[in-house]
Amino acid sequence: MPAKLQKLKLTIAYDGSAYHGWQIQPNGITVQETLQQALVTMTGESLTVYGSGRTDAGVHAWGQVAHIKTVTAIPLTGLWRGLNALLPDDIVIRSLEVVAADFHARKSARAKTYLYRIDNGLQPNPLTRLYSWHIRKPLDVSAISKAAALLQGTHDFLSFKAADGETKTSVRTINNIRVWKRGRYLFIMIKANGFLKNMVRIIVGTLMGIGAGKSDWQSLAAILAVKDRRMAGITAPAKGLILRTVYYPSV
Amino acid sequence: MPAKLQKLKLTIAYDGSAYHGWQIQPNGITVQETLQQALVTMTGESLTVYGSGRTDAGVHAWGQVAHIKTVTAIPLTGLWRGLNALLPDDIVIRSLEVVAADFHARKSARAKTYLYRIDNGLQPNPLTRLYSWHIRKPLDVSAISKAAALLQGTHDFLSFKAADGETKTSVRTINNIRVWKRGRYLFIMIKANGFLKNMVRIIVGTLMGIGAGKSDWQSLAAILAVKDRRMAGITAPAKGLILRTVYYPSV
Repeated sequence: MPAKLQKLKLTIAYDGSAYHGWQIQPNGITVQETLQQALVTMTGESLTVYGSGRTDAGVHAWGQVAHIKTVTAIPLTGLWRGLNALLPDDIVIRSLEVVAADFHARKSARAKTYLYRIDNGLQPNPLTRLYSWHIRKPLDVSAISKAAALLQGTHDFLSFKAADGETKTSVRTINNIRVWKRGRYLFIMIKANGFLKNMVRIIVGTLMGIGAGKSDWQSLAAILAVKDRRMAGITAPAKGLILRTVYYPSV
Repeated sequence: MPAKLQKLKLTIAYDGSAYHGWQIQPNGITVQETLQQALVTMTGESLTVYGSGRTDAGVHAWGQVAHIKTVTAIPLTGLWRGLNALLPDDIVIRSLEVVAADFHARKSARAKTYLYRIDNGLQPNPLTRLYSWHIRKPLDVSAISKAAALLQGTHDFLSFKAADGETKTSVRTINNIRVWKRGRYLFIMIKANGFLKNMVRIIVGTLMGIGAGKSDWQSLAAILAVKDRRMAGITAPAKGLILRTVYYPSV
């Protein structure tokens, strides 16, 4: 007699260094695939892992969210511990909880927060090199902050979308964007109702161009207005980026 | 015509994950060896790198110090940049400076500071797993702090020395020992005039036994007094340990 069908929400942290991103694909090992294999092994079911969205190759996560449907009779705590024992060291299931049948990791998500870390020391700190972008040139934090503030609110972010990113609309709302310095590190935190392909990395690359004095902070308004990817800056490296939180309506 | 003989002080940061410790040895690649090869390549001299002391396999450093003698005519800035370009990503020379002829990285050192990081979350954070020791059980920070305070001052630390560690005397002075919690992490910082083999790791292993409730904080006084390694706790993993600073008399 099979147990009752349940929907489970997984909150997942991972070091993306060794993965070809979140989403299953033919060219390399992904986080979704590794997670799915562990779940199939534990439950014996041929289940599918649905994530809140993709992360690029090399991007990290602290709070990626996924859901599965399962009829397993394994108690939640046992399943949680067993999965973490099966998974490699660079993927950790932080929590596992039963959710309502209509919960969907991607469709129910209301907002996400990404954190980007820049190491602005003269030489990179080898102990954080895998989780930050090293920029030797001293950055103008005040100019970066003023430019970042222009991105807050609802805009068409077409200038900050990878050319091959497919989407119906490129209008998104940035609820909050914060820039702060701590020691040698510069952090950029962006909360939005959704992100276009490479959006955070192109925003960060553009802001760093401004911080390095390649253009002034006011130029960001023009870049936003022109809706042309070629006017924005470079795409910042994946390794500095962490998906921090995915937000859902409280139940 | 050879340039003048100079003594240079190097301050070095490294991720010890991939190395068999600091000191050159036949069984694996070490930090000293990697550094020395880069210096030989840059200068063309068959010089030797003298470190402030060994670090165990897997231990990291932010402020390891070494000295070399060289007759190179390469300007300091060029040498510094060239070395960092030659070195792998996990070793960085933070600074390079000319010092007096009587400076000696090991003999002139007056004190060192080590930092140990424990991840006390329910599951390890994959983004810090290479630089911390994960302990699932909630730790009693107050008991750890009280036990740590007993180590301050001048003592015979024989109970906290690896059995195979050779040394004339096991008396050392701990100038300062601090324990603090930040988020899920517990930090232990120890400044002493010198350290015995595995001393920090055995101190941390013993303190964690106390923090996990295996013995009370007062037991540390007895462990210190008995001068027997078998009475202390386990040797904490190398990966949580960072050599932060080596102190020298100001010139």
